Amino acid sequence: MISRTEIQDAGRRIATHVRRTPVIALEDRAFGLDTKLFFKLEQLQHTGSFKPRGAFNCMLGSDVPAAGVIAASGGNHGAAVAYAAQNLEHHAEIFVPESTPATKVERLRLYGATINLTGRNYAEALAASHERAAQTGALTVHAYDDPRVLAGQGTLGMELEEQARGLDSVLIAVGGGGLIGGVAAWYQQRVRVISVEPEQAPTLHHALAAGQLVDVEVGGVAADSLGARRAGELMFPIAQKFVAQTLLVTDDQIVAAQKALWQKLRLAVEPGGATALAALLSGAYKPHSGERVGVVLCGANADLTKFPG
Amino acid sequence: MISRTEIQDAGRRIATHVRRTPVIALEDRAFGLDTKLFFKLEQLQHTGSFKPRGAFNCMLGSDVPAAGVIAASGGNHGAAVAYAAQNLEHHAEIFVPESTPATKVERLRLYGATINLTGRNYAEALAASHERAAQTGALTVHAYDDPRVLAGQGTLGMELEEQARGLDSVLIAVGGGGLIGGVAAWYQQRVRVISVEPEQAPTLHHALAAGQLVDVEVGGVAADSLGARRAGELMFPIAQKFVAQTLLVTDDQIVAAQKALWQKLRLAVEPGGATALAALLSGAYKPHSGERVGVVLCGANADLTKFPG
Repeated sequence: MISRTEIQDAGRRIATHVRRTPVIALEDRAFGLDTKLFFKLEQLQHTGSFKPRGAFNCMLGSDVPAAGVIAASGGNHGAAVAYAAQNLEHHAEIFVPESTPATKVERLRLYGATINLTGRNYAEALAASHERAAQTGALTVHAYDDPRVLAGQGTLGMELEEQARGLDSVLIAVGGGGLIGGVAAWYQQRVRVISVEPEQAPTLHHALAAGQLVDVEVGGVAADSLGARRAGELMFPIAQKFVAQTLLVTDDQIVAAQKALWQKLRLAVEPGGATALAALLSGAYKPHSGERVGVVLCGANADLTKFPG
Repeated sequence: MISRTEIQDAGRRIATHVRRTPVIALEDRAFGLDTKLFFKLEQLQHTGSFKPRGAFNCMLGSDVPAAGVIAASGGNHGAAVAYAAQNLEHHAEIFVPESTPATKVERLRLYGATINLTGRNYAEALAASHERAAQTGALTVHAYDDPRVLAGQGTLGMELEEQARGLDSVLIAVGGGGLIGGVAAWYQQRVRVISVEPEQAPTLHHALAAGQLVDVEVGGVAADSLGARRAGELMFPIAQKFVAQTLLVTDDQIVAAQKALWQKLRLAVEPGGATALAALLSGAYKPHSGERVGVVLCGANADLTKFPG
């Protein structure tokens, strides 16, 4: 299990490379709730998601070979790896399925990565990336199941604790579990760390219920960021020990939270970035009166022209 | 001229009604500039602009009659007056020209205001609002030329000073001058307060050059928020004394700044909200090496589906 010291080390390592994203303390009775809400605006991070924290910590905590780094992802993880590699002057190869939209591929190219369009789906692109890494010796940056990545994501919890003192609970959207794993390893029992997943991607919810990692079917509006079929091996024992509760929300509730963030705060986030708040607005999470609740807005890689606001 | 004490009083008066919007300190060399940038995220304020600061201070600093409050504006000021009135349980009548888009009218209605669609243009709507106020005795909340409004907007400067210490300069977009008047009255000579206006709405620029208030033609992409034909009487002597420089930017530069804010920070702002940054990105403002520059992002009432990102 990663330690708080590893997260502190990660924080020092990545400090000049990532943004200390701000927290906004909302007014009493915001969204009609009898709580005190603190939103961590992590969607303002480089590349529009929290992922650079883990990507930078992985690269800065490793001897990156001349062959550079490799990742498989057309989404937030791929963008973060490409960005971090460009920033640290490493070569990056990103494997994405042939079906990846041209706009996402273009974005990776803007960060200077070599793109390999290969395979009919994510699993095939991932397999190709592993084959290639074995040939070249490049460092594979896993999207979540790596202690350096977990410790990097955990720095978000460390920052949030400095910015919003005395929280009772923190709501975090979960895909493969890298972010909640890191944050729960930071807070341990001091704050109730709560997982929120789409009903159509209930990866951690089912794993904790089964007492072991299980594969789930994934789909729905947030699948591109939260649609991991299986949670990470490394985060699972952390979640068993430190995740207080797992909640599920519907796609409609996620879209409603996206709209509410625009209407009430002029924040445009992607579906995965609104998923944690959806648990509060839908009533899936019922805070006690006056509870101090942290909500992590974790990504904003949405096409504004298709925004539901 | 309003005093720093009036601004401090305003801050105490409106504290529980407005959001203390966060500041993000950007990384070195953000946007390729050799500066240290601090963005005040005031577009996250209630109703999506800084305007509630002045509206609340005006209402809380007055004896509001039973007839309530009146304003003429289909834009950010109207929304702020309607919102503040609803919050403080005053009746609000908002006068808007007949040509006002239905979406803007609908928004005012959501804040519980009575809407009077009247007149072919803003001047006619304003005249009708004055006539009505004379009949009913309602309190007219001016968009900028009122000491209570100026002091309310000045609280943004007071907050910014607490949040970003040691600034050398602050860039502020200017329409009628309420915001820059309040902020300049707060900072006085301690920080270089710089005005940025669209070339097509150079209200303060021309007035300071002429040494007196003058009427200008207004148009362009930011006209709905920055298109005041004449600066305020009350802000003008403050600007003469404390505004260090006035800059102009083109519509293309404003739109480019809007795009850059989305691409680099996932912040969606309206044209007026990107105008201050446009002065930096276009080179209209040339900071010295290592300068600590504050930039106020003052509004985000844009239609996301028409966003240029």
